Amino acid sequence: MVLDQSWYTEASDELGLGFSLRIKAKLHEEQSPYQRIAVYETETFGRLLTIDGLVMLTERDNFVYHEMMTHPALFAHGRAKNIVIIGGGDCGTLREVLKHRNVAQVTQIDIDERVTRIAEQYFPALCDANDDPRAQLAFADGVAWMENADSASVDVIIIDSTDPIGPAEGLFNEAFYRQCRRVLAPGGLLVQQSESPLVHSELIGAMHGGLRQAGFAATHLLSFPLPSYPTGWWSATLATRDGEPLSLPPESVGFETFYYTPAIHRAAFAQPAFMQRVLDPGSDA
Amino acid sequence: MVLDQSWYTEASDELGLGFSLRIKAKLHEEQSPYQRIAVYETETFGRLLTIDGLVMLTERDNFVYHEMMTHPALFAHGRAKNIVIIGGGDCGTLREVLKHRNVAQVTQIDIDERVTRIAEQYFPALCDANDDPRAQLAFADGVAWMENADSASVDVIIIDSTDPIGPAEGLFNEAFYRQCRRVLAPGGLLVQQSESPLVHSELIGAMHGGLRQAGFAATHLLSFPLPSYPTGWWSATLATRDGEPLSLPPESVGFETFYYTPAIHRAAFAQPAFMQRVLDPGSDA
Repeated sequence: MVLDQSWYTEASDELGLGFSLRIKAKLHEEQSPYQRIAVYETETFGRLLTIDGLVMLTERDNFVYHEMMTHPALFAHGRAKNIVIIGGGDCGTLREVLKHRNVAQVTQIDIDERVTRIAEQYFPALCDANDDPRAQLAFADGVAWMENADSASVDVIIIDSTDPIGPAEGLFNEAFYRQCRRVLAPGGLLVQQSESPLVHSELIGAMHGGLRQAGFAATHLLSFPLPSYPTGWWSATLATRDGEPLSLPPESVGFETFYYTPAIHRAAFAQPAFMQRVLDPGSDA
Repeated sequence: MVLDQSWYTEASDELGLGFSLRIKAKLHEEQSPYQRIAVYETETFGRLLTIDGLVMLTERDNFVYHEMMTHPALFAHGRAKNIVIIGGGDCGTLREVLKHRNVAQVTQIDIDERVTRIAEQYFPALCDANDDPRAQLAFADGVAWMENADSASVDVIIIDSTDPIGPAEGLFNEAFYRQCRRVLAPGGLLVQQSESPLVHSELIGAMHGGLRQAGFAATHLLSFPLPSYPTGWWSATLATRDGEPLSLPPESVGFETFYYTPAIHRAAFAQPAFMQRVLDPGSDA
């Protein structure tokens, strides 16, 4: 079967994989100073945001991503007050962070203000906490921002970026991780989106190695489904500045979620046998 | 982007979703008495088996499905000796069942012998346990087989079928479930593939309701990633003839796996918040 122009298709020759959503209309397209941004109305997944031809999010399944980039890390920290989001211009991660009442300040640093302006217009639900007095939106380079940030000033850093090619490349290396660790306060955590376990296990292994080289005491992989990203199987990497133990998830969440639960929190740390061999080659799993 | 004929695409207008794999060659295609079966060589996912234009399995990711259809149920039973597989003609589930040394007999009942013959030829790794003296391959209608089976004669029934349309439709209703429950011995379990939590939550709810109407004491949903099935997010439903508790997973598995681990076993039972509301509307999750 060959799909016609009524479908949006993202395909990768390298992965040999394609993903398609049937579209009703293209609502917007522009070239920002950094990237090509488009918004579509799909038949069954609500609105779709793409950057440089890659799916960033859909209305139907972004809840899994934004909840899993946020709640495990904040609950694992246990008393996080000052949060920094690198990337995250669609504001969905910001919205989830602000659900935590103990959070005092959240700074979102995305290089491209146009992503946020488009999100405000086409994905208003993701932006409905942008007026929270605890939120600060900065439009700047995340690497430079981190170099200039005060040491030991942040409890959780969330790196909610595009893939490690193009604008986000500088967010996936040891030099950047070293700056992040310096900026984290004692007990601090970093969490970063880390691609698909099935097809990016080498990258994930390299990220974990880079984080430990940069001084992070321990790293964990959180796995979750994400239908609109390649393979539908995604991950986040959690790194602890000083080591364990992590705080346990709460008995009850205390705010509305659609994916995250305390049981999902615990479950996300379970590693497939093949991934355990990548991350911990000495194990006999 | 429109993909050309060098890609195999499965798309559903109803779901508004498409999935594509780049192919090197079509290796085989035939119309059996029951369905159209094809085998492709893909660029990155190994060989691909399709039935009536739908992906049945790829060499690269079938391990998740076959392990999750088997090991949680067999370990949750704890002392299963006599296993029946309805469907499963590719023999991948059979292979996983036979890794359990306490299993004494496995009967696989698939309506279409051609699926098994094609699997033997093109997916020999899935069939490498077919010669095990504990294995019996029957080519017959699963519904009729179950009606004629002795009561209380089977410990675990695994329903490894295609979607609940076409030949497999009769495997997703209360009358069939009632026969399965009759055939299960005390302590017996049934496990059935149950589609995608994200886009088939109504079907999943109906399956769980049908199983309980048929007399099963409790039902559980097991979630796992499956890149080559729609949404990449799949599930199996586990039903207990007589109730809880299930046996715990073992400390160590005792044979080679690529996805399943004891931690994955526990994790698979965790429900996303939205699914918890479908399966247990009284909960406040």
